[in-house]
Amino acid sequence: MEDVATNNVVVEASNGPDNAKFLKRRGSHRQNGVIQPLLTDLYQITMAYAYWKAEKTSDCAVFDLFFRKNPFHGEFTIFAGLEEVLKFLENFHYSDSDIEYLRETLPQSVEPAFFDFLKNLTADEITVYAIDEGCVAFPKIPLLRIEGPLIVAQLLETTLLTLVNYASLVATNAARYRIAAGYTVQLLEFGLRRAQGPDGGLSASKYAYLGGFDGTSNVLAGKLYQIPVKGTHAHAYISSFTDCKELKRRTIKHKDTQEEVDFIDLCRSWKEKLTPGLDVLREEASDGELAAFASYAIAFPDSFVALVDTYDTAKSGLLNFCAVAMALNDMGYQPQGIRIDSGDLAYLSTMARQKFEQIAEKFDRDWFRGLTIVASNDINEETIWSLNEQGHQINCFGIGTHLVTCQRQPALGCVYKLVEINHIPKIKLSEDVEKVTMPGMKDVYRLYGADGHALIDLLVQTGEDSPKAGSKVLCRHPFHESKRAWVSPAKVEPLYHKYWKDGVICRALPQLSDIRQRVTDSMKTIRQDHKRNLNPTPYKVAVSDRLYHFIHDLWLENAPIGELS
Amino acid sequence: MEDVATNNVVVEASNGPDNAKFLKRRGSHRQNGVIQPLLTDLYQITMAYAYWKAEKTSDCAVFDLFFRKNPFHGEFTIFAGLEEVLKFLENFHYSDSDIEYLRETLPQSVEPAFFDFLKNLTADEITVYAIDEGCVAFPKIPLLRIEGPLIVAQLLETTLLTLVNYASLVATNAARYRIAAGYTVQLLEFGLRRAQGPDGGLSASKYAYLGGFDGTSNVLAGKLYQIPVKGTHAHAYISSFTDCKELKRRTIKHKDTQEEVDFIDLCRSWKEKLTPGLDVLREEASDGELAAFASYAIAFPDSFVALVDTYDTAKSGLLNFCAVAMALNDMGYQPQGIRIDSGDLAYLSTMARQKFEQIAEKFDRDWFRGLTIVASNDINEETIWSLNEQGHQINCFGIGTHLVTCQRQPALGCVYKLVEINHIPKIKLSEDVEKVTMPGMKDVYRLYGADGHALIDLLVQTGEDSPKAGSKVLCRHPFHESKRAWVSPAKVEPLYHKYWKDGVICRALPQLSDIRQRVTDSMKTIRQDHKRNLNPTPYKVAVSDRLYHFIHDLWLENAPIGELS
Repeated sequence: MEDVATNNVVVEASNGPDNAKFLKRRGSHRQNGVIQPLLTDLYQITMAYAYWKAEKTSDCAVFDLFFRKNPFHGEFTIFAGLEEVLKFLENFHYSDSDIEYLRETLPQSVEPAFFDFLKNLTADEITVYAIDEGCVAFPKIPLLRIEGPLIVAQLLETTLLTLVNYASLVATNAARYRIAAGYTVQLLEFGLRRAQGPDGGLSASKYAYLGGFDGTSNVLAGKLYQIPVKGTHAHAYISSFTDCKELKRRTIKHKDTQEEVDFIDLCRSWKEKLTPGLDVLREEASDGELAAFASYAIAFPDSFVALVDTYDTAKSGLLNFCAVAMALNDMGYQPQGIRIDSGDLAYLSTMARQKFEQIAEKFDRDWFRGLTIVASNDINEETIWSLNEQGHQINCFGIGTHLVTCQRQPALGCVYKLVEINHIPKIKLSEDVEKVTMPGMKDVYRLYGADGHALIDLLVQTGEDSPKAGSKVLCRHPFHESKRAWVSPAKVEPLYHKYWKDGVICRALPQLSDIRQRVTDSMKTIRQDHKRNLNPTPYKVAVSDRLYHFIHDLWLENAPIGELS
Repeated sequence: MEDVATNNVVVEASNGPDNAKFLKRRGSHRQNGVIQPLLTDLYQITMAYAYWKAEKTSDCAVFDLFFRKNPFHGEFTIFAGLEEVLKFLENFHYSDSDIEYLRETLPQSVEPAFFDFLKNLTADEITVYAIDEGCVAFPKIPLLRIEGPLIVAQLLETTLLTLVNYASLVATNAARYRIAAGYTVQLLEFGLRRAQGPDGGLSASKYAYLGGFDGTSNVLAGKLYQIPVKGTHAHAYISSFTDCKELKRRTIKHKDTQEEVDFIDLCRSWKEKLTPGLDVLREEASDGELAAFASYAIAFPDSFVALVDTYDTAKSGLLNFCAVAMALNDMGYQPQGIRIDSGDLAYLSTMARQKFEQIAEKFDRDWFRGLTIVASNDINEETIWSLNEQGHQINCFGIGTHLVTCQRQPALGCVYKLVEINHIPKIKLSEDVEKVTMPGMKDVYRLYGADGHALIDLLVQTGEDSPKAGSKVLCRHPFHESKRAWVSPAKVEPLYHKYWKDGVICRALPQLSDIRQRVTDSMKTIRQDHKRNLNPTPYKVAVSDRLYHFIHDLWLENAPIGELS
């Protein structure tokens, strides 16, 4: 990543009244991490040169960015990545070193004037309409509509796809985990170590939170995006303690009275008292584990969570945890709970809850019943559905690999298609009817029923009258003549908003936590049968009657000559 | 990402003679992108505090970083990510703003002195032994051995895993594609738009190249890592041209004579001549496509590759390409070939080659036979094996989604395990014997047979005599008493090298292209049956007799009391 040098160059290159604007812009971007315009496919640049050489610099185009299929065999997608797209547009500019690299890399025959052209490019003449970030979205409905100079719009393709594809995929995955786990269970993202590269990890943490997770273990994501961070200790922490004798630090002060006592002795005496009730032999419970728990409790007396499966959850971890928890409570602190990272999570969590209840009963400590049980260990969506079926006592899931790498489908297939050039709509035909593009500039409306649920998304030609609440509108399948219905919506919501025009972000960008709330709100408007795990009903996406005829007339004009295929 | 501010802090904190060294170090790191130490799991920091509070700051530890299973149902893995690990160590330092964030985030009860301790931490007391980057590696054999202060070694865990896991996964995936495609076919990485985040894309490009790819479409990866970049044009480029009439730029100069002619007329006349031989109707072949190809050829006369499937490969794209290629050749240029991005790649590539041969024959243009055929479109390893079986005429594969997201297994499960603390070896027991760790500090040797193939990797205790070429050595399965064999190696290679000590990288780091060569060389030493796609033979990994007994004695000491389970 480049820093000061690059930015100086930018500032020097922009003389006149815009200088101050540039300065401010670059400044704010450096803080949040800049996506460089060379993060793209080379063919965008070779195309730019071919367009330039063909004197198509004043051609204007419209591109749609959309996906064709919901991920994970589901019937919904959460749109995410918009803020990063807009920040990329704000910053879109080739640095001197970028130009130098391109000059060395492209064929010798490329004319020098093209590099001067590239050097002065910005996204200021581009206009972007988009669905709000965090909204539920559906196949074929463009998430972004990009209008402006053909060359610039084409140059944006790869980076926009990169920024939207993974963000939306992870957000959708997170929303699915949330549905599986329910709304009372905590979900934490623990995936950094298995993520696809360092920034794969950062993006995963950000968009898992956006999609409905409660926090992350990723500290940098916490710092950069103000996401709650969570974490306790690893097996190595437990293993690094051999026994209580080795401990140099044994005391703790009472939270209120500040009286200092030997905490290790207190833990040991609780271990003695608790052993009979927990059906374990005292000598089976590791003394090193007790030392580790006690030390951790001394360090974090008010947020004590213990990893209980290093030796044996039933025979060692639970007893040691309960002993330290009772000792902490004697000292005026409130222990939080346990984490289980292996074994049969349904059985172990239920067994742990029973022990907690027994202790609560026997020692008259009601808070012991409600201790948190965190489960981790290679959990995926299916694991959660299976645990739900078996019954479990888990309050919090820590989810890593499968969430961040999106095991079931590691990429969302967003595409970026030309739909209009110099005000002439373009259709891309394909033998696969699903791949035929919707030509021309379009707007999109979501129609709601009287119960508040979304009924259908309707694509219309830009310039058509918008559908009206209370009036019936003909909604057609884009390709099947016979599939059509009159819909009379109780509410009509235009899904597109102008986000970028004349070089500025022209709609307020909410905080990440507000986008997260939008996901929840937007998901509530989607009927349950679209969201269920098994055989969900497809949500309907339609075109207006006018757009339908327009598509098919244009198709006919462009149909191949020759035999019927 | 932070920049100047962070680095100033570092420099200010390092007084005395080391100042210059620090300045130099930080300078070089900023250029290559800095991985920040907060890119970690919070529990590393909470553990650090608990250790600090327990006065374990002078405890020393040894950790092994290894994986338990080769990815993709294969029997080998390419180790990658080492250079980034070492650069991370060089730069390991918490900035003031990191400390500030941690102060706000950790519980109020954390003592202020801990933050002073964190602020002064570096990785200077850490020693790292590692296998060379780009070497073939196998399960259970640690890729890295990290020794040093417990707290620092623990704090490195997540970042080291993040840097090694995905790098090694993608490099291994790339090496598998290389085996499938053979060594005469070009492999290009086209995955940026589907990668897991912007840096997921960058890492993918880098490590796909390392693993054996020939180039990438990712321009930033080309710039940062000096990887060859490749690219032509997209379907949108073709669609953006309506017909030849619209073209403003029609001429091209002859490469040698500089004579300028109307290139469009020349292309059209070749189209007339070629139509009869290609079994197509001239009016079926899109005039817009011809305009697009001709314009692209005018821009890149010496590197003309055309995407031929926008309308119809057989009925339009091939004819238009051949016309432009012949016209280019008339003008003294050498066209390169075509790209096919849809349809039956075996059939279409074979058909295209036949047409090329017909034209070569009919017009006596021998170079036409050998034109390059590039294939893309959702290609994975299986597609290549299937194409090989069917027969194809593809010279180059462009591979995206499946390569970069590692569809078959999107994460490598490297772990980081404590094996020694204060010179006392530690064993982590598990009901799953595969998860039992190898205790203590170990070295590793690769034993080769007389034919140059690797026979077995042997783990020994550090301090044991190394195996000698020509002398027999007992190699034992770590857990099965009866599985053992005497091996008499023709050559013995110590796999570990000291890469990091006293705060400096102490072994030369090769260029990326040299590491790529190492992958090729290292793969050659592995027997074919370990590398094959279907049911490959597992490569053997063994322990010395002394290590075997050491493991099992320690296991017994730590075995649980109670019934046999």
